[in-house]
Amino acid sequence: MLDYNNQDSWYDDKHLNQSPVDLVANDEHVQDFLPIYADKFYQLTQEINDETTIRLTGFGNATIFNREFEFQQIHFHAPAEHTINGKQLPFEIHLVHQNKIGQTVVVAILPKLGNSNPTLQAIINNFNADEPQSVSIKLENWIARLSSGFHYQGSLTTPPLTEGVEWVVIDDSSLTVSQNQIDWFIHQFGKNNRDTQALNGRQIEHYSK
Amino acid sequence: MLDYNNQDSWYDDKHLNQSPVDLVANDEHVQDFLPIYADKFYQLTQEINDETTIRLTGFGNATIFNREFEFQQIHFHAPAEHTINGKQLPFEIHLVHQNKIGQTVVVAILPKLGNSNPTLQAIINNFNADEPQSVSIKLENWIARLSSGFHYQGSLTTPPLTEGVEWVVIDDSSLTVSQNQIDWFIHQFGKNNRDTQALNGRQIEHYSK
Repeated sequence: MLDYNNQDSWYDDKHLNQSPVDLVANDEHVQDFLPIYADKFYQLTQEINDETTIRLTGFGNATIFNREFEFQQIHFHAPAEHTINGKQLPFEIHLVHQNKIGQTVVVAILPKLGNSNPTLQAIINNFNADEPQSVSIKLENWIARLSSGFHYQGSLTTPPLTEGVEWVVIDDSSLTVSQNQIDWFIHQFGKNNRDTQALNGRQIEHYSK
Repeated sequence: MLDYNNQDSWYDDKHLNQSPVDLVANDEHVQDFLPIYADKFYQLTQEINDETTIRLTGFGNATIFNREFEFQQIHFHAPAEHTINGKQLPFEIHLVHQNKIGQTVVVAILPKLGNSNPTLQAIINNFNADEPQSVSIKLENWIARLSSGFHYQGSLTTPPLTEGVEWVVIDDSSLTVSQNQIDWFIHQFGKNNRDTQALNGRQIEHYSK
């Protein structure tokens, strides 16, 4: 029986719903594409060296799974944090969104190795020059309409590792980053991918044709 | 700088987004009513004495803030856990819902003191007779269309006090429970309301005309 006269004893500190995870598509069909509709541009206004990555705050709006969210910040991991069927890509972009009551949705993009990404290069150049300038992300390239990908409940991937974070991981992005760009990040910050975490029974939805 | 070679050291165990809370309406108008559309009935199939309350599992469906949820279970607190403008009502009903990816929404109803609630009385009678029988909740009475109320991000109110729980607290329910029914619960289980918790900057939305 629960002791209502000793409520301070109730806390336990299990962490069962952590991110990142290995994403595996199951056979259950949900819908052909992820329901995300973002502004044409997110405007990035401040570039922050947080010693673990570059973090850029800014503004923009998106409707994600039928609720309105405000874009908060973007940051980068090299190599990728989420893996797909056990396979790790070289880079992962996190677009963090929040709504009025503080629910967090992170839209993760997994670029492939290829041509240099010009927006990312502008961010790197501003960082190198120590001259933060406003950069805008052209969303139709970053979060394409009718993207396919994964949807699950997890956590922040850096401390305080807060749970209750909703993840949308796009798995068919046409974005690429170059080996030079990846090398620059790893040289600057070291590898900054958290290990994949146990699912502990969590269901992952896969949105795909 | 974050030590990616010592990731086990990252956990901290702050609990900043806990429930219940004192709910205070601000002046910002969101929408006239809470966007909840439930089935006509939830069918309760199993009645459980969990030593802290009566918990009934069952099935039903609801669209809550534009997403589909399945009803999981209902249980009861006496007196109420959430307070409104510092005022505590005598009873609180929690209808717990979950969606495919494990997001939890609890719809809380705060009946007023008045006539005996017949569905609650059937539940009490089944409990007293130790003869669990299927009970159905007529939702139009329990979650009225166009209800007003509060919307915020919190936690379970019993261990493990998991955060990331979305709360919808209806504040204009026409449900009543009798003093006898309240007395029965408190005699059976003791007072089972968790203390209200600090908001720590959380925003609460109020949906009302």
